[in-house]
Amino acid sequence: MKKILLVSSILVLFVSCAKQSQVNSIKVTNINELNQAIKNCNAGDNIVLANGVWNDAQIEFYGKGTKEKPIILSAEEKGKVTIEGVSNLKIGGTYLEVHGLYFKNGHTPTKNVIQFKINNDSIANNCKVTQCVIEEFTQTDRDVSDHWVEFWGRYNELSNCYLTGKSNFGPTIMIRLEGNENIYNYHKIINNHFGPRPRKGGPHGETIQLGDSGTSMTPSHTLVANNFFERCNGEIEIISSKSNFNEFRNNVFFESEGSLVLRHGNYATIDGNVFIGNDNSKFIGGIRVINTGHWITNNYFYKIKGAEFRSALAVMNGIPKSPLNRYNQVTDVVVAHNSFIDCISPWQFSVGSNVGQSAVLPATEIRSARPERIVVANNVIYNEIPNENPIVNYDEVDGVKFKNNITNSDNKSEVKTNGLKTKDISVVKKTDNLYVLNENINKVYAGFDFETITKDIFGNERTSKNNSIGAIVNPVKEKAVLIDKSKYGTDWFQEYNKKTEAKTHNISTSEALITALKEAKSGAVISLKEGTYNLNSSLIIDKHITIVSSDINNKPELVFTSEKTAFEMQPKGNLMLVNITLKGNKFQNTFTTLDKNMSKAYDLFIDNVEIKDFKSVLEVSKGSFADTVSVTNSVIKNCERGFMLNKETNDGGDYNAEFVTITNTTFDNIQEVVLDYYRGGYDESTIGGNLTLKNNTFTNSGKAEKDQVLIKNRGIVNVELANNTFKNNPVKIIAILWGEKGQEPGENTIINSGKIEVVQNLELKLMY
Amino acid sequence: MKKILLVSSILVLFVSCAKQSQVNSIKVTNINELNQAIKNCNAGDNIVLANGVWNDAQIEFYGKGTKEKPIILSAEEKGKVTIEGVSNLKIGGTYLEVHGLYFKNGHTPTKNVIQFKINNDSIANNCKVTQCVIEEFTQTDRDVSDHWVEFWGRYNELSNCYLTGKSNFGPTIMIRLEGNENIYNYHKIINNHFGPRPRKGGPHGETIQLGDSGTSMTPSHTLVANNFFERCNGEIEIISSKSNFNEFRNNVFFESEGSLVLRHGNYATIDGNVFIGNDNSKFIGGIRVINTGHWITNNYFYKIKGAEFRSALAVMNGIPKSPLNRYNQVTDVVVAHNSFIDCISPWQFSVGSNVGQSAVLPATEIRSARPERIVVANNVIYNEIPNENPIVNYDEVDGVKFKNNITNSDNKSEVKTNGLKTKDISVVKKTDNLYVLNENINKVYAGFDFETITKDIFGNERTSKNNSIGAIVNPVKEKAVLIDKSKYGTDWFQEYNKKTEAKTHNISTSEALITALKEAKSGAVISLKEGTYNLNSSLIIDKHITIVSSDINNKPELVFTSEKTAFEMQPKGNLMLVNITLKGNKFQNTFTTLDKNMSKAYDLFIDNVEIKDFKSVLEVSKGSFADTVSVTNSVIKNCERGFMLNKETNDGGDYNAEFVTITNTTFDNIQEVVLDYYRGGYDESTIGGNLTLKNNTFTNSGKAEKDQVLIKNRGIVNVELANNTFKNNPVKIIAILWGEKGQEPGENTIINSGKIEVVQNLELKLMY
Repeated sequence: MKKILLVSSILVLFVSCAKQSQVNSIKVTNINELNQAIKNCNAGDNIVLANGVWNDAQIEFYGKGTKEKPIILSAEEKGKVTIEGVSNLKIGGTYLEVHGLYFKNGHTPTKNVIQFKINNDSIANNCKVTQCVIEEFTQTDRDVSDHWVEFWGRYNELSNCYLTGKSNFGPTIMIRLEGNENIYNYHKIINNHFGPRPRKGGPHGETIQLGDSGTSMTPSHTLVANNFFERCNGEIEIISSKSNFNEFRNNVFFESEGSLVLRHGNYATIDGNVFIGNDNSKFIGGIRVINTGHWITNNYFYKIKGAEFRSALAVMNGIPKSPLNRYNQVTDVVVAHNSFIDCISPWQFSVGSNVGQSAVLPATEIRSARPERIVVANNVIYNEIPNENPIVNYDEVDGVKFKNNITNSDNKSEVKTNGLKTKDISVVKKTDNLYVLNENINKVYAGFDFETITKDIFGNERTSKNNSIGAIVNPVKEKAVLIDKSKYGTDWFQEYNKKTEAKTHNISTSEALITALKEAKSGAVISLKEGTYNLNSSLIIDKHITIVSSDINNKPELVFTSEKTAFEMQPKGNLMLVNITLKGNKFQNTFTTLDKNMSKAYDLFIDNVEIKDFKSVLEVSKGSFADTVSVTNSVIKNCERGFMLNKETNDGGDYNAEFVTITNTTFDNIQEVVLDYYRGGYDESTIGGNLTLKNNTFTNSGKAEKDQVLIKNRGIVNVELANNTFKNNPVKIIAILWGEKGQEPGENTIINSGKIEVVQNLELKLMY
Repeated sequence: MKKILLVSSILVLFVSCAKQSQVNSIKVTNINELNQAIKNCNAGDNIVLANGVWNDAQIEFYGKGTKEKPIILSAEEKGKVTIEGVSNLKIGGTYLEVHGLYFKNGHTPTKNVIQFKINNDSIANNCKVTQCVIEEFTQTDRDVSDHWVEFWGRYNELSNCYLTGKSNFGPTIMIRLEGNENIYNYHKIINNHFGPRPRKGGPHGETIQLGDSGTSMTPSHTLVANNFFERCNGEIEIISSKSNFNEFRNNVFFESEGSLVLRHGNYATIDGNVFIGNDNSKFIGGIRVINTGHWITNNYFYKIKGAEFRSALAVMNGIPKSPLNRYNQVTDVVVAHNSFIDCISPWQFSVGSNVGQSAVLPATEIRSARPERIVVANNVIYNEIPNENPIVNYDEVDGVKFKNNITNSDNKSEVKTNGLKTKDISVVKKTDNLYVLNENINKVYAGFDFETITKDIFGNERTSKNNSIGAIVNPVKEKAVLIDKSKYGTDWFQEYNKKTEAKTHNISTSEALITALKEAKSGAVISLKEGTYNLNSSLIIDKHITIVSSDINNKPELVFTSEKTAFEMQPKGNLMLVNITLKGNKFQNTFTTLDKNMSKAYDLFIDNVEIKDFKSVLEVSKGSFADTVSVTNSVIKNCERGFMLNKETNDGGDYNAEFVTITNTTFDNIQEVVLDYYRGGYDESTIGGNLTLKNNTFTNSGKAEKDQVLIKNRGIVNVELANNTFKNNPVKIIAILWGEKGQEPGENTIINSGKIEVVQNLELKLMY
């Protein structure tokens, strides 16, 4: 076919060892040229996007390449072609490749940024997206749902890409399986770097989801291998596998607050993966198992300290004859040759057992079906500090066969078995986080089909002569590492080189403060001299800003005189106030968020601050989300209300802040509620909020609160309320704690202030 | 290993073309010798059971054969080794074969007659049962559950066997999938003849069941091919596929009252099967589809006249987010290249839609999810007598893509589509029941993956040059037949040569009657001369017996004087009474069954008989089952109760009779209920009972019936009540009909006798 080209066309000749192949390179500089080039493209063509910003580009890349001659859509220089604004990319056809595009400063107008389908008659097969970056290309409203990469068709690939910063509703990557064209897909998601996905404060924040419950009976065969998941904290499921025969191999999950979850579908392979926790987080998990027939082998768990849903190995209870979208019983699962190093109680069985909640949940939500026909064999549990409860059981453990597992601690768990023996084993540190048994324990249990476990985590052969329990067989290669950063992401994007500078602005007038705040770069410190700063407009916080007194012994006083909020928190705003006084005129709030388009989280740190004479201290909008609100060593007085984090009232599991910590602070003469922190809906996919109230004093507050409750925390999962003093607060109830989540009041001093109640089970709205 | 043999050992040398193989033949004559031989057997051995009856033989056949040298357990002469009494066979090991055994006159003491497993440590793999017969080896109590062949392990085979007459609870063949040892099983059920399985009057009467809902997510890959299913009437599911990836190829379903049902599990292949109905039965079905991803190709349906669950192609509605054991939505199914010849409304969609029953069923039972992403293409519907409603829809049909289907009738269905066109096509009869398009319709729709449909029903190639819609591509081979009896069953069992003789015994005294009844062979006729026959004991009916008057104008009178029942119906008893009077003494019943062990059905035909002065006319036991109770041209009077078929009260879907027909008969002065015919429990797996009451007269009856109901028929599905006269029956209600099942009173004359009620929805006990 003769091509009519409006653009420059260069015929390049490549010589391969086997044959000659012609690449026809077509450079395009705008969307019209691009569309024309796509319309006319043939197998072997390379359509080159000129360097620059491609704004509002909605690209439909269609063509029929061949295995030998794919059609390529590439950046003139990788990373120098940015797709911005309201843009997306749809791919339909065969053997199409996309190289080196950089999506940022925008969002998709549809449900997907990159979609392996143009429409039902034009689905991608054998297509590839590689060396691309999608960075914070997120919807302005957290509640608007999209996916960044949506797979359809068969044999498609996402490789060597870097994706980070999705803060809105919806999994980052989604595999779709509706229709015979999309099953047996053998897609590959390989060698990518999944950068941080921030906490979302609600469900639907997975990094990868493979199918959904409605297609969970289909054969998928997607391969997720050699990816690096770095602090993917979107929700409790980093990966949510919801189809059959998926494979997860040699991925690294680094300090990611969640787990690889076999949510629906069966016969997954989880082999050779690395799960690295850290020293303090209890939210970082490992593998959570539901359904049938999975093989979990050669995985390495380091310092995973989560429990229940977030334990290193969480094997759940199912719902008898479960509805399609709930929890099938776990059966016929093999867990073999895994290493658990310095994990706390790594094996947890019948997780999610909730027979005790029969009063508040319908029968179709009661997880009472225990795991059956489970084989746990040839694993090693090593703890430098003895961990005498390697197994936690939430129900009877009668369907698990333990064989030839070794630990170095005594087993004082309720579950005792000859299949987990205590031995005096020791480990040696090879490289970062990598601990290996000093010598192989060569005697292994040979269960049914165990002969298929032929290699260890590093791909070394397991032989009858040289084998070991655990994930690693000695000898380990020189310089073996758990995280090989050369494997992940692009070869051009510098994701680790972004540092914020910390310039200090010394300020002594209101005008200077306003100017400095506008002009400061993220990370700046504004140091205020002693004195009074009158301000008649809001201070906008859209970056990292610290405002601090220049004199540790004196608090500069900021006096707000308009009716507008004192501080307006915008997306990515991160405000730290230290040693300051904030004074209002009773008509404005101290802190508010934008009314909408709070696309990303904000943070608020208050230390040694006096806040007085405001309406509310904090008022937020629906859709806004604070990662952290922290108040310490402060005084808050003569306000109408305190911290109002209560606008996510859809009861869909969403909430307005993840961590709310108030310590060593005095609240005096707050007319209504001191804190209202709300999470509604029966949801288990998030951390669920964290409230710490310790060493505070509350006096003379709540007198105008119509519910006669001083602190509202309904639905928040993690609550600590201890060592506070409540004095002369005319309310009936100080707070209601949730017994089923382990909440209990600590030592509080209560004088003439109502009482702290504990309810065991909270009735929440069912979401499905 | 040197073998110690207590039995004769013959070393036989076979020479094969490729290599020499030694067969060590060990003949055994009793169970001890057999056990010893099994204990000592080696690869290549043939253990030969001596001809004769092996009574109470519980055989555990264990060994390790090889592919080249299996271990064989065989009959000295096929069919001359009968396994009787309380016997069974368990097989564990590799490459074991069982040849030529004949199970009869007994039942298994365990849950299985033949089990491909001895225990969990000894499971069969690559084992085969061939050339065996299991005939009426059924439990004595219908409610005791067993399987005749239960598969475990992998690669096992049942081939060239004949199985018939299972009348108790439980599928004839069962595939078990619990545990990794039993998945990916690739079992073969091939070339068998499944002889009649009688109606059971309750659920759990499948001929083959592959898994259950609990293992329905496992990969099975069982092949069911080239079998002949002859009048397998056990329940609505002849085959119940409840696992994934099963294949059903080239089977013949001959006049079998049920369907091949894809009950749970997904991705079944149904290719090249034949479904033959007949001219009057509405109970013979075809294929019923539930779940996802099935391919239904090259099947031939002839005179299938069933509707709803029993239609030729029944595509069901699912329950949204169905519980594991209920009804998943139908999605991603292909129905292509099938032929429907002289079927009535062969395509029925959204079968089972029951939104109207919301008042009596919980939400988890409401089938409202319509089929989605269904392709119906290249099929042919031909009707000699025009059938203008080829499609029946029980809900909107919005998820089905019809492409290139042809019919010869006008389509006046509610569902109209360009994808089903009316053309003036014609067919030619080749052999029995085989009708082929006069000429190919070569233009075919090529849907996704349709290139995998490479052959027609007879294995002929479909090519781009020579193809056709429908199951058959011309030219058809000479003498092609749908049913090739040389393929099915054993090479030794004569299943078609059993005829009952019909000798007539001419009788004139009571003693002669008693003697003749004892001595008569099944099928005999006892002809009674005019006169009175006094009988002070019960007449036992355990065979086919006809008792008839020798003179068409005179009724001999049988007068029963003891308190025992007049006639005792035993298993397989089939009594026809013609032109007789039966007189009781008010203390006994006319007909009863055994109290227990009613292992097989009985039948009762009453024509022109006068029955008077009894307690009940018919009293049955729980567990008893009459296929037919037929009364015509008769008079029944002065009894306490009429026909009492009401003892299956577990509400598990069971009932005491399948067909109850009373016509042209007078009931007079029956004190209580005239008929009590009961079926309880919400079950859809049976015909559900049939009651015909036409042209009868009921007078002066029901006066002592405490419920004030004359005729009780609760839960019976098919009821006809027409042209009867009810006069002076002091009851409130004559009968209650079930509107949802289409029951309505015909023209009845009612004088001073209460009324006939219709309730739309019947509240029934849920069974699961």
